[in-house]
Amino acid sequence: MDQLFIGVDIGGMSIKAALVNRQGEIKYKTHCKTDAKQGPGVFLKDVRNLILEIIDFSKAHDSFVGGIGFGVPGVVNNIKGTIDYAPNLYMENVSFKEYFKDLNIPIFLSNDANVACLAEVRFGAAKDYNNVVLLTLGTGIGGGIVINNELYEGNEGKGAEIGHTVLVVDGEQCGCGRKGCFEAYASASSLLRYTRNEMINNPNSLMWKYCKGNIENVDGKTSFECAKKGDISANFVIDKYIKYLSEGVLNICNIFRPEAILIGGGLSNQGDYLLSKIIKYCSERDYGYKNTPKPEFLICKLKNDAGVIGAAALAMEKMD
Amino acid sequence: MDQLFIGVDIGGMSIKAALVNRQGEIKYKTHCKTDAKQGPGVFLKDVRNLILEIIDFSKAHDSFVGGIGFGVPGVVNNIKGTIDYAPNLYMENVSFKEYFKDLNIPIFLSNDANVACLAEVRFGAAKDYNNVVLLTLGTGIGGGIVINNELYEGNEGKGAEIGHTVLVVDGEQCGCGRKGCFEAYASASSLLRYTRNEMINNPNSLMWKYCKGNIENVDGKTSFECAKKGDISANFVIDKYIKYLSEGVLNICNIFRPEAILIGGGLSNQGDYLLSKIIKYCSERDYGYKNTPKPEFLICKLKNDAGVIGAAALAMEKMD
Repeated sequence: MDQLFIGVDIGGMSIKAALVNRQGEIKYKTHCKTDAKQGPGVFLKDVRNLILEIIDFSKAHDSFVGGIGFGVPGVVNNIKGTIDYAPNLYMENVSFKEYFKDLNIPIFLSNDANVACLAEVRFGAAKDYNNVVLLTLGTGIGGGIVINNELYEGNEGKGAEIGHTVLVVDGEQCGCGRKGCFEAYASASSLLRYTRNEMINNPNSLMWKYCKGNIENVDGKTSFECAKKGDISANFVIDKYIKYLSEGVLNICNIFRPEAILIGGGLSNQGDYLLSKIIKYCSERDYGYKNTPKPEFLICKLKNDAGVIGAAALAMEKMD
Repeated sequence: MDQLFIGVDIGGMSIKAALVNRQGEIKYKTHCKTDAKQGPGVFLKDVRNLILEIIDFSKAHDSFVGGIGFGVPGVVNNIKGTIDYAPNLYMENVSFKEYFKDLNIPIFLSNDANVACLAEVRFGAAKDYNNVVLLTLGTGIGGGIVINNELYEGNEGKGAEIGHTVLVVDGEQCGCGRKGCFEAYASASSLLRYTRNEMINNPNSLMWKYCKGNIENVDGKTSFECAKKGDISANFVIDKYIKYLSEGVLNICNIFRPEAILIGGGLSNQGDYLLSKIIKYCSERDYGYKNTPKPEFLICKLKNDAGVIGAAALAMEKMD
């Protein structure tokens, strides 16, 4: 009988779950909408149903589930197996280990960016690298760290919060309570803020046309696509965004001197256009000496499957 | 015959070398002045003489030297065994591995803050911890990182440059070429800058009396000692310094969530007074949720021996 692993990717909108083998291949996949507003009871029951569905499938296919991993959009305690704090899920101190105890399957939790990083290092874009840092550029900035080919999570799994490192002391208020966080300057949300402000200042910007005259249509593509067409306002927005993003990237370089930096999240769809701008900014501002080894910059490639594959990989590795 | 290790602590003022056993005990110690201005030839010959002196001692005492480690105030390539860049030593691209090849003893180089961190984790203040970050508060800010009980140096040994992470985008010019580095705001040199500026603004500050009316007498103790006596200007200086230092410390907490943070360098002589101020600042600004595990804050305790013991420990571990 094959030993397989369940990876559960918990998002604010949907919960995805998959049965994954040791090669990172998905053998079965299912999902449901996230219904967390009614409290953890309904939510946990939904998660349980997905898991039971997968266990049934694995039994019917001559395999068994060796462990279950969860990627969580929030703060976990990876020793106790709890979600300590996940505002998107309206959750505080919810014990997964306790709730799923009756399944008699080992359970592991980690932050969603951590498991995405693990997935890309094991089965995705960063397979050839041992020291890797991931940044997901979405509503916030998620961080994942792999050191000596192992996921580094920090005490209780509460580290790798690279988005919550201050880049501008006394700067923009961040949701975390600090002021001037990397996330408050270089997340996709920050890009939207820069875009809207620039549009208000420049009624002639091509970005208005791109948004059909409605500023509410601004998204992560608005400034990028208009910049590519030569719009000066859009290029101003992109240059500003790239500056903050790259200053944060240079910080990561100087701390970790990693072999590779992985870029994921919605904005990573800009691919080489985004990377070339980061690389240009960084290479002109290398830490003060010649011959610093440059990291490879890579775009995440497992996309929507990174969460379930990474969560399953977490379970595989914690059990070994 | 006992296998012992030589640790060489290269400083801008002096070179210290010691014979160290696996318990971190110094069996023999010697030193000379750093004479680097005349080029690497004289300097390397001085280092060689210290090493030969120690080898003679070890032979006379029924032991042999299993490896030599060097702690370097600058940038090394730990694969090639070179000093790539060390402005204090007027050195670029100097190959230690090549120069000491004839000794037939394995040679290892690392940054001075890295070896100090290793020394404290193996034999000093942080013996009980597996995940530790060290900050040395001196002319600059040195960084050392121990993860899963192993020194983490980054690609080519060029990581752990925590002092060169930007805390204020477009801020104070740093010697490394970037603007707004942690080091440009929270090193001992920064504290002196804050102290002098405040004294110029406040002719009545007690700090003038402490300096006997001469601003050139300002040192790392001036503001601390006068703050303890209640001087308002001095407290303003200390509060400003603690703010920047602690914002950098919080960044480290959010990235590494380490078990312990080690403070070394000249300013660490302020001991508990310094730590209590950092702890107060940080505990009021914890990353946005309850129950974050706090790091222990520790003062380095091996002091002047940290360099030689850490360099020897580097050799021990790289050989194992």
